[in-house]
Amino acid sequence: MQVGFIGLGHMGAAMAANLLKAGHDITVFNRNPDKRRGLIDHGARAAARVADACTGDVVITMLADDAALGSVALGEGGIVSALRKGAIHLSMGTVSVELSRNLAKAHAEAGQRFVAAPVFGRPDVATAGKLFIVAAGEPGAIEPCRPLFAAMGQKTFQVGQDPSAANLIKLTGNFMIASVIEALGEGIALVGKAGVDPNTFVDILSTTLFQGPVYRTYGDLIAGRHFEPAGFAAPLGHKDIRLTLAAAESLRVPMPLASLLRDRFLRLLAEGGEALDWSAVGGLAARDAGSVAPATQAPPARLSA
Amino acid sequence: MQVGFIGLGHMGAAMAANLLKAGHDITVFNRNPDKRRGLIDHGARAAARVADACTGDVVITMLADDAALGSVALGEGGIVSALRKGAIHLSMGTVSVELSRNLAKAHAEAGQRFVAAPVFGRPDVATAGKLFIVAAGEPGAIEPCRPLFAAMGQKTFQVGQDPSAANLIKLTGNFMIASVIEALGEGIALVGKAGVDPNTFVDILSTTLFQGPVYRTYGDLIAGRHFEPAGFAAPLGHKDIRLTLAAAESLRVPMPLASLLRDRFLRLLAEGGEALDWSAVGGLAARDAGSVAPATQAPPARLSA
Amino acid sequence: MQVGFIGLGHMGAAMAANLLKAGHDITVFNRNPDKRRGLIDHGARAAARVADACTGDVVITMLADDAALGSVALGEGGIVSALRKGAIHLSMGTVSVELSRNLAKAHAEAGQRFVAAPVFGRPDVATAGKLFIVAAGEPGAIEPCRPLFAAMGQKTFQVGQDPSAANLIKLTGNFMIASVIEALGEGIALVGKAGVDPNTFVDILSTTLFQGPVYRTYGDLIAGRHFEPAGFAAPLGHKDIRLTLAAAESLRVPMPLASLLRDRFLRLLAEGGEALDWSAVGGLAARDAGSVAPATQAPPARLSA
Amino acid sequence: MQVGFIGLGHMGAAMAANLLKAGHDITVFNRNPDKRRGLIDHGARAAARVADACTGDVVITMLADDAALGSVALGEGGIVSALRKGAIHLSMGTVSVELSRNLAKAHAEAGQRFVAAPVFGRPDVATAGKLFIVAAGEPGAIEPCRPLFAAMGQKTFQVGQDPSAANLIKLTGNFMIASVIEALGEGIALVGKAGVDPNTFVDILSTTLFQGPVYRTYGDLIAGRHFEPAGFAAPLGHKDIRLTLAAAESLRVPMPLASLLRDRFLRLLAEGGEALDWSAVGGLAARDAGSVAPATQAPPARLSA
Repeated sequence: MQVGFIGLGHMGAAMAANLLKAGHDITVFNRNPDKRRGLIDHGARAAARVADACTGDVVITMLADDAALGSVALGEGGIVSALRKGAIHLSMGTVSVELSRNLAKAHAEAGQRFVAAPVFGRPDVATAGKLFIVAAGEPGAIEPCRPLFAAMGQKTFQVGQDPSAANLIKLTGNFMIASVIEALGEGIALVGKAGVDPNTFVDILSTTLFQGPVYRTYGDLIAGRHFEPAGFAAPLGHKDIRLTLAAAESLRVPMPLASLLRDRFLRLLAEGGEALDWSAVGGLAARDAGSVAPATQAPPARLSA
Repeated sequence: MQVGFIGLGHMGAAMAANLLKAGHDITVFNRNPDKRRGLIDHGARAAARVADACTGDVVITMLADDAALGSVALGEGGIVSALRKGAIHLSMGTVSVELSRNLAKAHAEAGQRFVAAPVFGRPDVATAGKLFIVAAGEPGAIEPCRPLFAAMGQKTFQVGQDPSAANLIKLTGNFMIASVIEALGEGIALVGKAGVDPNTFVDILSTTLFQGPVYRTYGDLIAGRHFEPAGFAAPLGHKDIRLTLAAAESLRVPMPLASLLRDRFLRLLAEGGEALDWSAVGGLAARDAGSVAPATQAPPARLSA
Repeated sequence: MQVGFIGLGHMGAAMAANLLKAGHDITVFNRNPDKRRGLIDHGARAAARVADACTGDVVITMLADDAALGSVALGEGGIVSALRKGAIHLSMGTVSVELSRNLAKAHAEAGQRFVAAPVFGRPDVATAGKLFIVAAGEPGAIEPCRPLFAAMGQKTFQVGQDPSAANLIKLTGNFMIASVIEALGEGIALVGKAGVDPNTFVDILSTTLFQGPVYRTYGDLIAGRHFEPAGFAAPLGHKDIRLTLAAAESLRVPMPLASLLRDRFLRLLAEGGEALDWSAVGGLAARDAGSVAPATQAPPARLSA
Repeated sequence: MQVGFIGLGHMGAAMAANLLKAGHDITVFNRNPDKRRGLIDHGARAAARVADACTGDVVITMLADDAALGSVALGEGGIVSALRKGAIHLSMGTVSVELSRNLAKAHAEAGQRFVAAPVFGRPDVATAGKLFIVAAGEPGAIEPCRPLFAAMGQKTFQVGQDPSAANLIKLTGNFMIASVIEALGEGIALVGKAGVDPNTFVDILSTTLFQGPVYRTYGDLIAGRHFEPAGFAAPLGHKDIRLTLAAAESLRVPMPLASLLRDRFLRLLAEGGEALDWSAVGGLAARDAGSVAPATQAPPARLSA
């Protein structure tokens, strides 16, 4: 299939590579053009402008936030102005419900189709083609994307015709992970101050009640206070909680745990934690218990492995 | 081994049955003596008084709360007064850190030994002999209990010499589960009000990020608002959060998420939810979003299956 | 002084009347022109369009929210396009810090001057000319407004050169009042459930620790559950907490009590409380304590006095 | 009247002095007997033991916490064992609802009478005889105490026959003050980070919406970060919130703002703030906003004036 791909960060580059491997004809665009290099070496075409990535059946965007996607899609020379009638904009980044609604409307008015299909998984999962994909949009627009989903992910959930539903599920999923970070942070602060080895506590949890990677991964990070380098940076975590709460605000859904998380992220950022992993939110409880000094510790060696 | 067993609720009866099956010589006591019947039929001896269950090497208690265990262990004719020197009191129920400390001290003063070994798992898991056991106490006292643990559980974690550490880990583990209930409640309220089928949301979460039984079990209960009959009743959940916060208070560990949960449980009980499952706490967010009526719905048929 | 006045709600109409009484030459505009009637009868000129109210030295706006003020000031035919160079836009409504910044910039670019001067006081206080005014802007622009402030208020606080500082103080002041509503709500729920007459509790508080009108007024409303008719409607209270949190978000200031209030307002609105007074937020705690039925009670007769 | 007075801290000594001035025959007891000196110089008799202060018509206790009052009243040689039938124990300290209930019962069983009459006011107010007194108990037991109340306070509120109601109102009143501290802390953090002088903000609040001493006093302390020396120490504030929540727990009243305050106090104490004034809780929000360094500042000179 002829596919444009816009947004070549850690996630996007890995996803585009898997599309290439599956035999698709990929044209890549990135604001910083150097990031196209590796993919071009493996057979991708280079797009000099956004519009050059919009000549095929589908253009995929994997952009980090509303500002980036809004400008690429709705700005001058953007996707809406460049895509041919009937073609599909497949948006796979984590953006707001509101922007997703605006894009659906703009594409419809331009005679184009819009599918939101955000993903769960970190860069290593993207590289392995094992992402979980949550897709929403008209069935007729999702169907042609299936070979692309198959190349990038291990499973696709189709969740309805309103694209923004997929964005809401993705945001809410990240809220669920952030909730685990807070709960682990409080639990570790408690048992740790009582003299229990936090790693033992994490071992017990993650091999009994909470199997699967989330508790193990974040439990280890928080128990070891290994918040650098960031796998998923605190400002991104903050953004996702903010967008979750924005959706909750417009739907009038009180979410006290999400509100707590918002305050945690604001504090982390106010204290200078921009470069930390979002799991550093789980380190605040031990700080408030007086168990660790206010200053952030240096990253340990073993994380770089 | 000669073992007394006190406390024959759903959990205790299943655990005692497994000890019998493994060939141990079991003497059972229960406040309501009728509950001894089934075990006696399978070879257990009946104790008419607490002291009659204290004649062997080990006496196990599986009692629901501090009041019950305190009276059985420290009251007149209780375990401390009846157990021979060197024998072991193995306490497997979920009780407070404070009571565990008091028992450790009382048994030490009486020349006896005390091991705390609370368990993770619901009655069906106990029946299958697949509990997870968290044990703490002197190694010399834990060692003789190992064959008993092997008969009741699939894995035992040894977490130190201070018995109360095991109780703290158990309470904190229940706090972790309650946190999941709250997060699921808020997430389901949000996506549900946006028109997404809550069951789809739970499916996505529990087959991707959060494999393992907790998210699936509680997600289904909350999405379907199936809060009756109670698998683990709201007052027990409230008790565990209260004991977690009592430990946090004495250690001076602020736990805002645990505080939120405490307020949720108080509200549930104030509204008359005594008979509901503790997952009903996860139904409050949808209520506050105006999505469901205040009154509790009748339990669906399929739960009884 | 020649003054335009835009926005003739309960507050604005009372303020404009006091300006007329003080001998100023007032031209009034309102979206619903009927509301100009009373003022015209007392000597005000009628403006058919926004621009007609912008011909003097000062134009005052007293508009309820960002949308209204943004459109009147920045829209086509709005204040920025109509005001002569050097003239002053004096904005007295409760709007966001962000809009205040945008207006300051737009007026500066147009060679005009901008002063923000929001007020504390309800309509009866406005009628009495006893408002408290918080003004910010260039001293040279505030000086000419002093006779106007003198006609409308009992005291003016000058808080700096950045107009948005005045807006922030106003919003934060409303957050302070909302905090009292929540604290009263919880306190009344507690003593009330213990059998203490809530009115006695309010009497004690408001004649000892907390003299002044806020505790007395809101204490009486909450103790009596008199939430209708609204003196200051719940959606306006929600708006102010939302704008407070928006300012806090952009400044990275965690405000857990403001977050609690946001969730309280969302719940009140989700449950259908749009028409209630914002003090109804203080009625939720007694609901959660199981002390009152979910449904809102009818307003008592004595409030209509 | 012949009155025993037990507990000569800053508050108790001032109250006893006013009783002496009013001509009552006072016998004083204090654990540290040196504190009796000043009162004896002004005509008080010295009691060597608790029982020696229990020979008159009324014995007043002004003790800081449950432990002290419980031991003095219920311990060996305590008030209950020493007071003659029909005599009155007038308890004026801030203690728990539960202890008040236990004392009421113990005194009734001993044929004695019990009145709870906690006070609002700091030591300077006690010295001036201007306390506000909240009294509860049988009317027949309160009546004889009226001359004593008149000597110590400016006004007495009679709130029912159950003595513990007075204790609950006192605790809830302190919760109301602590709520102001939190609200001021968040408000000051917000405006302060925006560049507004916090003192200006406090001036505006305390001269407009919130007249009376609470906002002025605590606003100045928080704006100036003057948390030492303590007027009312953080552990006492923590105790009062803890007892408020204990009452709320037993009555099943969720109080999210009180829960927030509990976590604030725990953090303050965990960080080493034992010696600080309880208003230091209002300094945490600015810390979380990154506006002030974690370490507590030295007390300024002007507080000692």
